[in-house]
Amino acid sequence: MDVNQYMQTLGRQAREAATAMARASTNDKNRALLAIAAAIEENREALKAANAEDLENGRARGLDAALLDRLELTDGRINTMIEGLHQVATLPDPVGEMTDFKYRPSGIQVGKMRVPLGVIGIIYESRPNVTIEAGSLCLKSGNAAILRGGSESIASNRLLAGCIRTGLEAAGLPATAVQVVETTDRAAVGALITMPEFVDVIVPRGGKSLIERISREARVPVIKHLDGICHVFIDKDADFSKATNIAINAKTHRYGTCNTMETLLVHADVAAEILPQLAEAYVALGVELRGCEDARALCPAMNAASAEDWDTEYLAPILAVRVVASLDDAIAHINRHGSHHTDSIVTENYSAGRRFITEVDSSSVMINASTRFADGFEYGLGAEIGISTDKIHARGPVGLEGLTSQKYVVFGNGEVRQ
Amino acid sequence: MDVNQYMQTLGRQAREAATAMARASTNDKNRALLAIAAAIEENREALKAANAEDLENGRARGLDAALLDRLELTDGRINTMIEGLHQVATLPDPVGEMTDFKYRPSGIQVGKMRVPLGVIGIIYESRPNVTIEAGSLCLKSGNAAILRGGSESIASNRLLAGCIRTGLEAAGLPATAVQVVETTDRAAVGALITMPEFVDVIVPRGGKSLIERISREARVPVIKHLDGICHVFIDKDADFSKATNIAINAKTHRYGTCNTMETLLVHADVAAEILPQLAEAYVALGVELRGCEDARALCPAMNAASAEDWDTEYLAPILAVRVVASLDDAIAHINRHGSHHTDSIVTENYSAGRRFITEVDSSSVMINASTRFADGFEYGLGAEIGISTDKIHARGPVGLEGLTSQKYVVFGNGEVRQ
Repeated sequence: MDVNQYMQTLGRQAREAATAMARASTNDKNRALLAIAAAIEENREALKAANAEDLENGRARGLDAALLDRLELTDGRINTMIEGLHQVATLPDPVGEMTDFKYRPSGIQVGKMRVPLGVIGIIYESRPNVTIEAGSLCLKSGNAAILRGGSESIASNRLLAGCIRTGLEAAGLPATAVQVVETTDRAAVGALITMPEFVDVIVPRGGKSLIERISREARVPVIKHLDGICHVFIDKDADFSKATNIAINAKTHRYGTCNTMETLLVHADVAAEILPQLAEAYVALGVELRGCEDARALCPAMNAASAEDWDTEYLAPILAVRVVASLDDAIAHINRHGSHHTDSIVTENYSAGRRFITEVDSSSVMINASTRFADGFEYGLGAEIGISTDKIHARGPVGLEGLTSQKYVVFGNGEVRQ
Repeated sequence: MDVNQYMQTLGRQAREAATAMARASTNDKNRALLAIAAAIEENREALKAANAEDLENGRARGLDAALLDRLELTDGRINTMIEGLHQVATLPDPVGEMTDFKYRPSGIQVGKMRVPLGVIGIIYESRPNVTIEAGSLCLKSGNAAILRGGSESIASNRLLAGCIRTGLEAAGLPATAVQVVETTDRAAVGALITMPEFVDVIVPRGGKSLIERISREARVPVIKHLDGICHVFIDKDADFSKATNIAINAKTHRYGTCNTMETLLVHADVAAEILPQLAEAYVALGVELRGCEDARALCPAMNAASAEDWDTEYLAPILAVRVVASLDDAIAHINRHGSHHTDSIVTENYSAGRRFITEVDSSSVMINASTRFADGFEYGLGAEIGISTDKIHARGPVGLEGLTSQKYVVFGNGEVRQ
């Protein structure tokens, strides 16, 4: 079968399964999640063997160490997958929630019901645990899913696909509700993102170039996350202790995550007081600083920032530092150079805080908190399928609710339009 | 200036204006709406003269009577535009609404703030009043708008564009917050839908072929509405009086609207009792009936429906009629042949009603009410920019809230991630 036909078959099966999933009871969906967890536990050795095969092929193909690390399924990571399935089973089911029913002058009562999106295509790279994370969220939210992992994890993903099918069948749900693309043909991605008749939304998880390509070529809506160029702005009315803790945590808690601060902005009125000691702390932690002229005047050891630095997601122990003359300049810098992901102000000033959260156009805006909190678990969504830097449908961390939408429900008593 | 450069200029101006509009106060936005209304009143005669020019050109180009009628701005329609502006001014401002703030175990408090989408592109045909309707909704929801009307209404639209600029300036808002594309070059549409750097979402209002073309070629999200193939299902437990009223109203209240019923489904158990007298009523009102075999066995005067009839939006006094064996068959027919717009069941049976609203996958589902109620005004949205049959972002009538999204707001007290 050619790859387009194969993808059409997966699509048709997913569309059919989506109807059954939309009406599946919360109980059946939870039973499926727990049965998938049990199947993974039962197949732990086989899964590790399949993963070893992927790792061996990866080494033979010369994959770099970081990629190989993400590819590896250790016992710890398998345990995390299993725990994740149990956690998703305990999350409240968003489907069917009815809200906002109000009577209208005509006599009808109008409200909304939360419903699944339908079929969700997930495109990701290397990490085979995404197969379970993404698949479980789609399942719990009453959607069907088509999962397309990287070719480097194909053996692991095929084995996980079998566990998913086992779990779905054990709960009496269609085995095609969560399908893994079991070919490494690259044309599968092109087919998946151009089948609006079978796929309702695409969630790409991977590098910027993958996401850009998918956004460009997709014929269906994409919930996407490009860069995470996040800022902390230390206002002139900042509490210095909070400012120091937040600035250090936002940069150094983890370097490779999208909610890590990449540029620190400091109000000129307090730069001389706070920046030198902060710079010292960063250097002690091994962070390279790249500053504007004003910052370097205060901290001569800093490297000079180039224009590009303000637009760079380092994902590394490097931090751009800029002294700004005012709150207005800070907001303007963030809206121009940021990626609309997450930005935080440190201030004790009510009006400055209120202006910052109103005027900064990012999916998460914060006062006196580390940007590292921008995360589905930290926000209480229970889990996240990704962080959207888009403006329509969902912004910020996307959990179960982001995989649903709302339809209108009208309760009448025989009313007709006059 | 070539058309692409021209559209890029409009785009850049809109993007800049969007920042100002996002922070514009409710008062300023309302003042602008009222000032636009005043400018239209002041320019009433000039507007009628411009519209007469459009009508003359339209007649010379051989436009049909229906199109010419939609193009015409009578005094009554101008009054309606002015009233519409006053009404939008009285609607609550959705922007800045903050909801759902909850403390998390880390100590941060997380909630959401409603924010504009940014720049909205509207593409529409003939009716120049859409310029004011769509422009006023974008303005009130804090967005910038680029409006691209049909070439046949260019003189009217240019004049309305002047009134909008006057009103925006009177309120101290950027005159570029609502821009009308003042060229009839068709390439303008192609440019508008492929500038993701300047346009955040496209709302096409027009015929199916226009919307299909835009969906296919757009590089930005599209809030779209294709067909309105709506159904009424008369269940075996229907109240016959409600069923008759709703079935007649849903078809005959207006023939050309998207929420008009196009197919009537009747449960086999009650078809013999209700269908003959209902058929008689339709015929008396001049409605042509096209029935399935079972329906024609009961009403021999009915024409025979072909397979195509179940998939047709007539927008005319024609009704397809099908007798179905069960609630399951009714739901299956609607999900297969409907357009996910609006569908209603007439029943006194609790379980049948509950199953219908849960399992029918349409943007509006109703019990004992006419499909004609699917409308922003009837639902209490105050106004509507269109009806979405999409699944992501917005389903059903789209009002001010549909032109916004929500960002996360985090209030902290110096918290850092552990």
